[in-house]
Amino acid sequence: MEGIKRVGYKPFQAKICSAEEAALHIQHNDLVGMSGFTGSGYPKDIPQALAQNAQRLHTEGRPFSIRLVTGASTGPELDGSLAQAQAVSFRSPYNSEKAMRALINAGQVAYVDGHLSRTGDSVDAAIWGEMDVAVIEVSAITEDGALIPSSSVGNNQTWLDNAKTVLLEVNSWQSADFLGFHDIYRHEGQGAFQPIPLTEVNGRVGKNTFWVDPQKVKGVVLTHTPDRNADFSAPDDAAEKIAGYLLDFYSHEVKKGRLPPSLFPLQSGVGNIANAVLAGLKKGPFRNLQGFTEVIQDGMLELLDEGVMEKVSATAFSLSPAQAAAFNTHAQRYQGRVILRPQAISNHAELIRRFHIIAMNGLLEADIYGNVNSTHVMGSAIQNGIGGSGDFARNALLSVFMTPSIAKGGKISTIVPAVPHVDHIAQDVHVVVTEQGLADLRGLSPVQRAQKIIAICAHPLYRPMLEEYFQHAQKQSFSFHKPVLLPQAFSWHQRFIETGSMLVSS
Amino acid sequence: MEGIKRVGYKPFQAKICSAEEAALHIQHNDLVGMSGFTGSGYPKDIPQALAQNAQRLHTEGRPFSIRLVTGASTGPELDGSLAQAQAVSFRSPYNSEKAMRALINAGQVAYVDGHLSRTGDSVDAAIWGEMDVAVIEVSAITEDGALIPSSSVGNNQTWLDNAKTVLLEVNSWQSADFLGFHDIYRHEGQGAFQPIPLTEVNGRVGKNTFWVDPQKVKGVVLTHTPDRNADFSAPDDAAEKIAGYLLDFYSHEVKKGRLPPSLFPLQSGVGNIANAVLAGLKKGPFRNLQGFTEVIQDGMLELLDEGVMEKVSATAFSLSPAQAAAFNTHAQRYQGRVILRPQAISNHAELIRRFHIIAMNGLLEADIYGNVNSTHVMGSAIQNGIGGSGDFARNALLSVFMTPSIAKGGKISTIVPAVPHVDHIAQDVHVVVTEQGLADLRGLSPVQRAQKIIAICAHPLYRPMLEEYFQHAQKQSFSFHKPVLLPQAFSWHQRFIETGSMLVSS
Ligand SMILES: CC(C)(COP(=O)(O)OP(=O)(O)OC[C@H]1O[C@@H](n2cnc3c(N)ncnc32)[C@H](O)[C@@H]1OP(=O)(O)O)[C@@H](O)C(=O)NCCC(=O)NCCS
Ligand SMILES: CC(C)(COP(=O)(O)OP(=O)(O)OC[C@H]1O[C@@H](n2cnc3c(N)ncnc32)[C@H](O)[C@@H]1OP(=O)(O)O)[C@@H](O)C(=O)NCCC(=O)NCCS
Repeated sequence: MEGIKRVGYKPFQAKICSAEEAALHIQHNDLVGMSGFTGSGYPKDIPQALAQNAQRLHTEGRPFSIRLVTGASTGPELDGSLAQAQAVSFRSPYNSEKAMRALINAGQVAYVDGHLSRTGDSVDAAIWGEMDVAVIEVSAITEDGALIPSSSVGNNQTWLDNAKTVLLEVNSWQSADFLGFHDIYRHEGQGAFQPIPLTEVNGRVGKNTFWVDPQKVKGVVLTHTPDRNADFSAPDDAAEKIAGYLLDFYSHEVKKGRLPPSLFPLQSGVGNIANAVLAGLKKGPFRNLQGFTEVIQDGMLELLDEGVMEKVSATAFSLSPAQAAAFNTHAQRYQGRVILRPQAISNHAELIRRFHIIAMNGLLEADIYGNVNSTHVMGSAIQNGIGGSGDFARNALLSVFMTPSIAKGGKISTIVPAVPHVDHIAQDVHVVVTEQGLADLRGLSPVQRAQKIIAICAHPLYRPMLEEYFQHAQKQSFSFHKPVLLPQAFSWHQRFIETGSMLVSS
Repeated sequence: MEGIKRVGYKPFQAKICSAEEAALHIQHNDLVGMSGFTGSGYPKDIPQALAQNAQRLHTEGRPFSIRLVTGASTGPELDGSLAQAQAVSFRSPYNSEKAMRALINAGQVAYVDGHLSRTGDSVDAAIWGEMDVAVIEVSAITEDGALIPSSSVGNNQTWLDNAKTVLLEVNSWQSADFLGFHDIYRHEGQGAFQPIPLTEVNGRVGKNTFWVDPQKVKGVVLTHTPDRNADFSAPDDAAEKIAGYLLDFYSHEVKKGRLPPSLFPLQSGVGNIANAVLAGLKKGPFRNLQGFTEVIQDGMLELLDEGVMEKVSATAFSLSPAQAAAFNTHAQRYQGRVILRPQAISNHAELIRRFHIIAMNGLLEADIYGNVNSTHVMGSAIQNGIGGSGDFARNALLSVFMTPSIAKGGKISTIVPAVPHVDHIAQDVHVVVTEQGLADLRGLSPVQRAQKIIAICAHPLYRPMLEEYFQHAQKQSFSFHKPVLLPQAFSWHQRFIETGSMLVSS
């Protein structure tokens, strides 16, 4: 079995066990730190065994749930199976799994939506008490007991440092060539007051591997299971339009001297639109690009393949099955050009400022003043979480938010009079772009922003309604710096809740 | 006349002129960068002469207004006189002057509320076009033409670098001993990707003085006018209670090992409550304190005098008349322990993270979920601006917001179901403290935050109303992660607008 060959360290070979045995180390109400970021590098077998334990205990009438923290989103084997088993009482800092989301929105799981750069600090500070167990996927263990990370880094080193008990999953599906892709660095803060010494996107300041006190390792599980890789849908018309506006805008900024010809390092969310932007960059006029981002998706690897992008730093991969397979075969190609770092570093304010990042993120809705809701549908139901969007949007040189102008087949306008939940304040939203057009909001007053967003970004179905709201607000508002009609601010959302559409039925 | 002695550079002596003459260099629609931060170090004479020019032109039926950017707030001679003369069409990034505020809220001045750390970048990037004129107060000019700053640094070096024309006000009221108090450093970003090399609160990385191309200097005006210094009111009962809770909390955090015995460097807003906290620190158990803040107010100087605080970095003073006079007499005492920096540095995300700042800021209102409105009364009328509160709250180790639980004699609850404008998202609001108590919100879900804020922070007059709202929301919300009743979310504000009170009249 290939798996055992990946465990080079003798004392750990003796700890190899089944997922079921390993899962028994996890007790009711434990604070458990698991690996995993955007569906990559999360443990696959232990969480499923844990879910079965929980179900067994529940049928015996005994309580069992854990408090779960990760890097970011995981996959069906982790959040999915634990949610189905009702085995989680608390979740942080990010989730995009449907069953878990349903429990959160039913009020059955306490969810804490956190800046991804700061969750590790909360655990170091024991905000939720001490960490009981860490469950970490690695791609291999060296002869001297060092842990070679797999397809994400996330908070793993922090969990390994804090947990009293450590369980490892060695995943032989992951590339055997991962050594050298990671830069594991913890910025030991307390009182040192030193800079993070990173001055290049692909610079190195840490180690190749995680380190862990071998005494704490109570189980090593061998697995061979792929990451939750999903195909990207081909860019649709809206995504291509958005990408087009954005590339034109960057060319304009280069002409103005605000961006260099090779731009500044790019951060990009994942998904359809982000993918279209990356595809557009392949053809666009920009060369020698760099990436300083959270997640490396297909498009970024393609830019590297084509020689359009030079180097990229992130904390995780998020690839389609085909790209993941290709990466696992040809990993060596990317050595030195792709670096994965702890999320506390990939998303660190200090570095995002230093590298003059161009941030591109998705949103659920923006209001006419440029405030953005990325997380709470109708102000109350969590979609995923703020993730790293706050880390990047606040500290980027240029912060772009992109979205189609309507959702749910037109029943929702993503441009609204007011957002019922704010993740990004207008100061951090420099550009809003929809398939209708791109609004550069920098340096504008609230009234000017509203005029521009309504005229440029809103869908024609909703533009007249927004104009009407804004005209009334400019007459009837309590005050006129930022005109607002409080009783009507959320009427569109209320209409959607009551009628299934934000449109007024005629 | 003492003033002339302060102009050591011969070529500038030849440029000494009246404020009226100097003001003629400013044209209609010019983008004008003036010095000034929290009422200190702003030009006093040229703005008044400019206001007179404007009034004269207006009576002749000619248009005259400028686009005005500063460090932050100034005084009656600047914002006040220009507002009265209707001589400003655009204002950024911060204002606390009443006449100017009235024009903004009437929709007559376009106001752009900005993060104070980033305004300079906008000017460097020519977001508002090129800067036409800079009007900068200095305390003296050396023999070789270097400019010795006065009581604030703000964006002055950025204005001096960008403006086509420079006008100087040499203010002999300011201490003659200011040389050595300032550290003028610009982090030349574009492409360099280097850390800011500051590793101590009172470290030095730049020059003692501003530098300017002498060719650009078209006028030097001598003045002897005090800064807008206002007395602090003695801490009232609410402020003392808030200070008490906060000091207990810090002691608790020290015990938990989350803060060192001398705490981490403090950032503090100005005003009544901030002053009470600083006064409390004089008596409290903490020694060897440090400050890394925007503004040095009386309380900080007293902590230095008492030996409780070792050193403090800021971008400006904001003193009472008595303390300002004392400082001007005894400035040398503080050499090396007090450093004033550009606001791009005093408020830089990189440094706020590095120094593990404990941030303490005021607010207008917080909602039950911990979102904070610092700026927009009833969601539409600007009070002052976000200032540096976003720079500090997002990047601090510990971010505290403090407020009395009611305003306007009880007609307003500062704890509300929802805030109609968000400056600080719940993730950046770690602690909310009122005279009722201190709520530590770290690591809590929205529902847990709401329970805690209502139980601990709300005023008894409003607590039952909040409980009722929250109970209904927990039953009738669209979803239950963050329960919200959209139609009633702003009903308290609307009631205040309509009846003058958030209380339901019986
Ligand atoms: C905001 C976010 C959910 C958008 O994701 P996306 O994949 O681009 O958007 P989609 O258009 O597929 O929308 C996702 C879902 O939300 C729905 N939706 C979109 N806009 C909506 C709105 N205004 N109101 C309600 N629902 C909306 C969509 O219909 C879709 O629903 P479905 O899953 O039932 O089909 C996503 O960008 C996100 O999670 N952002 C926060 C974290 C982040 O920015 N991370 C970036 C890395 S730092
Ligand atoms: C929010 C802020 C205005 C509070 O200031 P403060 O001096 O502590 O507060 P005060 O209690 O004196 O309130 C100021 C005014 O707002 C009013 N007010 C307070 N809370 C209010 C509320 N919830 N709704 C409406 N008005 C309110 C007060 O009645 C007072 O009015 P007045 O001037 O007519 O008397 C102030 O902290 C601020 O401007 N913050 C943003 C910038 C910042 O944080 N800078 C810190 C340095 S980085």
